[in-house]
Amino acid sequence: MIELLDTTLRDGAQAEGVTFSLEDKRRIALALDELGISCIEGGNPAANPKDAAFFSMMREKRLLRHARLTAFGATIRPGAVAKDDPGLEALRRCGADTVSLFGKSSLLHVRDVLRCTPEENLRIIRDSVAALTDSGLRVWFDAEHFFDGYKADPAYALATLQAAREGGASCLTLCDTNGGALPDEVEQIVREVLPRAGLPIGIHCHNDCGLAVACSLAAVKAGAVMIQGTMGGIGERCGNADLCTLIPVLEMKLHQPCLPSGRLPMLTHTARLITEVMNLSPSDRAPFVGNAAFAHKGGMHIDGVIKNPATFEQVPPESVGNQRRFLVSDQAGRAGVYARLSRILPDVNRDSPDMARVIARLKEKEARGYTYENADGSFALMALDTLGRRPCFFRVDDFHVLCNSPLNALNVEKSAQAYIKVSVGGREGINAAEGDGPVNALDLALRKTLADFYPAIHRMRLKDFKVRVLDSGGTASTVRVSIESTDGEHIWSTVGVSSNIIQACLKALVDSIDYMLTYYVDTQTVPPSAM
Amino acid sequence: MIELLDTTLRDGAQAEGVTFSLEDKRRIALALDELGISCIEGGNPAANPKDAAFFSMMREKRLLRHARLTAFGATIRPGAVAKDDPGLEALRRCGADTVSLFGKSSLLHVRDVLRCTPEENLRIIRDSVAALTDSGLRVWFDAEHFFDGYKADPAYALATLQAAREGGASCLTLCDTNGGALPDEVEQIVREVLPRAGLPIGIHCHNDCGLAVACSLAAVKAGAVMIQGTMGGIGERCGNADLCTLIPVLEMKLHQPCLPSGRLPMLTHTARLITEVMNLSPSDRAPFVGNAAFAHKGGMHIDGVIKNPATFEQVPPESVGNQRRFLVSDQAGRAGVYARLSRILPDVNRDSPDMARVIARLKEKEARGYTYENADGSFALMALDTLGRRPCFFRVDDFHVLCNSPLNALNVEKSAQAYIKVSVGGREGINAAEGDGPVNALDLALRKTLADFYPAIHRMRLKDFKVRVLDSGGTASTVRVSIESTDGEHIWSTVGVSSNIIQACLKALVDSIDYMLTYYVDTQTVPPSAM
Repeated sequence: MIELLDTTLRDGAQAEGVTFSLEDKRRIALALDELGISCIEGGNPAANPKDAAFFSMMREKRLLRHARLTAFGATIRPGAVAKDDPGLEALRRCGADTVSLFGKSSLLHVRDVLRCTPEENLRIIRDSVAALTDSGLRVWFDAEHFFDGYKADPAYALATLQAAREGGASCLTLCDTNGGALPDEVEQIVREVLPRAGLPIGIHCHNDCGLAVACSLAAVKAGAVMIQGTMGGIGERCGNADLCTLIPVLEMKLHQPCLPSGRLPMLTHTARLITEVMNLSPSDRAPFVGNAAFAHKGGMHIDGVIKNPATFEQVPPESVGNQRRFLVSDQAGRAGVYARLSRILPDVNRDSPDMARVIARLKEKEARGYTYENADGSFALMALDTLGRRPCFFRVDDFHVLCNSPLNALNVEKSAQAYIKVSVGGREGINAAEGDGPVNALDLALRKTLADFYPAIHRMRLKDFKVRVLDSGGTASTVRVSIESTDGEHIWSTVGVSSNIIQACLKALVDSIDYMLTYYVDTQTVPPSAM
Repeated sequence: MIELLDTTLRDGAQAEGVTFSLEDKRRIALALDELGISCIEGGNPAANPKDAAFFSMMREKRLLRHARLTAFGATIRPGAVAKDDPGLEALRRCGADTVSLFGKSSLLHVRDVLRCTPEENLRIIRDSVAALTDSGLRVWFDAEHFFDGYKADPAYALATLQAAREGGASCLTLCDTNGGALPDEVEQIVREVLPRAGLPIGIHCHNDCGLAVACSLAAVKAGAVMIQGTMGGIGERCGNADLCTLIPVLEMKLHQPCLPSGRLPMLTHTARLITEVMNLSPSDRAPFVGNAAFAHKGGMHIDGVIKNPATFEQVPPESVGNQRRFLVSDQAGRAGVYARLSRILPDVNRDSPDMARVIARLKEKEARGYTYENADGSFALMALDTLGRRPCFFRVDDFHVLCNSPLNALNVEKSAQAYIKVSVGGREGINAAEGDGPVNALDLALRKTLADFYPAIHRMRLKDFKVRVLDSGGTASTVRVSIESTDGEHIWSTVGVSSNIIQACLKALVDSIDYMLTYYVDTQTVPPSAM
């Protein structure tokens, strides 16, 4: 079994445009754990207080069920003493039992970056690794720029691995840090190194030549047993080896298991969930998990797939939890929709007119920018609504939002006001609130007004709020607002789309309250006739 | 010299979201010609009237200076007679002297898609190729699903190549149509086929396993002399082999020239131009040509690159016409900030108090949620402002935004109104606008008001608009708004942060206008004393 180390939370954080909050890190780690990734590199607790906080939270709450959480850190500086080093001390104290410790394997870097002697670098590696293993930690040595270093001076590159082994390292990861190696080179070098290393070999590739996946596979072919990569391939510069591509290739093409049995169909969902948490646009063309990965457009391709899917699909889309789509026909995703619908409405038959109506409505909403991938709440309400079965709790009759404040005021508290009017049965509710911005003001006004009718709303709070601009129409772009809500016990998510951000938000808020009242509160609905 | 066949205009058109106008096709063909691509596959004149029009336009106007324009087409259907076939006739008449003609090499496809006998498929290939070569055309045979076909029945797959040769084909392109082949398989099969084919071999790979570039290189290693691919790798499903990746790897890593000497530095510009024509968002992470391909974010990476760029750059960015960038973020140290600052203010010394003040301000802004890694415009203005050198063009004195509309209205046009008041020197400007949502209304009002004072603002438009929610404070979360603006010649980006989305947007808009007036417009600034 190939060991996978996911470094989305560490090398992924070095991608342009990616910044994780503590909560983002927690959600990504849980999703990776659920998928069955064996090791999760959580960050560098010595360099970043947020990462240190993440490690203590994960340790205290014992949130991971299967995965090993590993820390990342640096060897000591030239001249420093390992036992006094604050960086190594932070690694010892962070609570992870395994550390990926990186050091230099290339003389160019020893000379131009560390600016120390080759011997001092070997001491640095040996002492740094030993300082951690002496404290009972497991250390995996990340040999930075190994391939460039080996090409320039194989004996020295091997000596750095030897130093790590002397320090007590239990795995040696060969890193193509600048992404410049070719698969043949990687294969040959891993073959040469393996018998001399005396330890299991891992591989860490970057995608600067578009070859990170190919180089990782070449290393495995030569005997490497651990692969480092990231979800979606995000990482420094062009990114890292994409685990969402590597996992299906390893499992289905090379018959090398790397996830627990039966988890592969969770891949697409996990990939999209993590992309959503990162607030990145998922790449439609991503192998296996992209929205277009099984989307057929050429007429002859569609004809072939209808006759026999194996003609134009290298693997079945279901094997990775993705869906076949025909870009010019309307047969898309029936199975996927049915699978979700049957959870909400078990009485709806797969080939019924009701099912067809839900699909038609879904397509119409998706064409307007909705996405239900990460919005179970809105999906359920949309399906109920389409079939005339959505209970009616309230109606928003009118709202006004006013926003005014001087540009340079640092304090924007209460800088917006909202007025809102709702009907609940035959009764009317009118109220107003002020908030930190127009969306907050409207949210507060809506919940305040409705709580008079449904006191359970007092328990509800918003967990997360995301905005995605869908097209490039400048400030007139369509925006999609996603909201995650909780009542302290359940979590549900809803979505709203509009070119007016206030409206998009209000739609998601209304769905959120409706969903809570439908599923989590024992309350009387208002007969539609009374509205 | 490796021959490149660019099929952006044909297989690229099979990508989701891509539709070419005749003018788009002309512009892309000219850009490819300028870059020095040897063959441009222009489309399928038999299947698509727009493609037929493109071929006649290109022939009549003789627009290409170097590249050969090739047509793409299908072999005849089972039972059809080649000399009467309208598809082949369209290929003969389109004016291209070379045709890529595709046929089936896999028995699965012969049986399930063509539904004819294996012998009839061989006749189809031979007769179709011959009908074109008899008219004096050069024919390159695209052997569809060759690798799957060969793995299932090598003798039959070779027989299809033999049929094409008997018809007079002058090159045989082995296609991995469903993108499922692995590099080792491709290399081995090309090695086996080459001595038996009796003709030059080409390769056409898809990226469904993230291996299209690696498989193309494996084919070249085994003796293939032509590579088919697309710019940016766009194409059916996950796309094709990306020529923007393959070209630099071939030229710089494998020393296999494929462009005329001296053209490689045009690659980034050409890639971005073509992406712009296709109206796609360029991938920041694309190898070699992406905006992040030489963008350094990790602090140790930046430190290394400043000491010696070769430490973390596999090739110099200039070699492909790209640029090095240092991303200013909480992962970057002093070196990165200085590298950016010295471009704006070359007189500021690295160890000066001015530099320290800029760093202190940067940290304070970052702690409030700003990020400058993708906001060169706001970074420059922040630095100028910190040092008292930011010119003052206007001040926003007051604004009010009003937003009101019924929840379920589909049409949100003009659903918000904004009023704004500015000072420009001693003069005052007051105006109002309505827009599709509050942000759009405010944007329109601000630019309308300022254009009376600075008419150059009429040239400015917003290219992109992004919103990122920074924390999980529900609807009271801090939001960061990023804006990309253009005056038709330059592109710059700015950022604004606030818990009020309207304010965040106004800050980014104000920076955007200020940056344009500072750097791109020859205008009088207003002395701060007059404000």
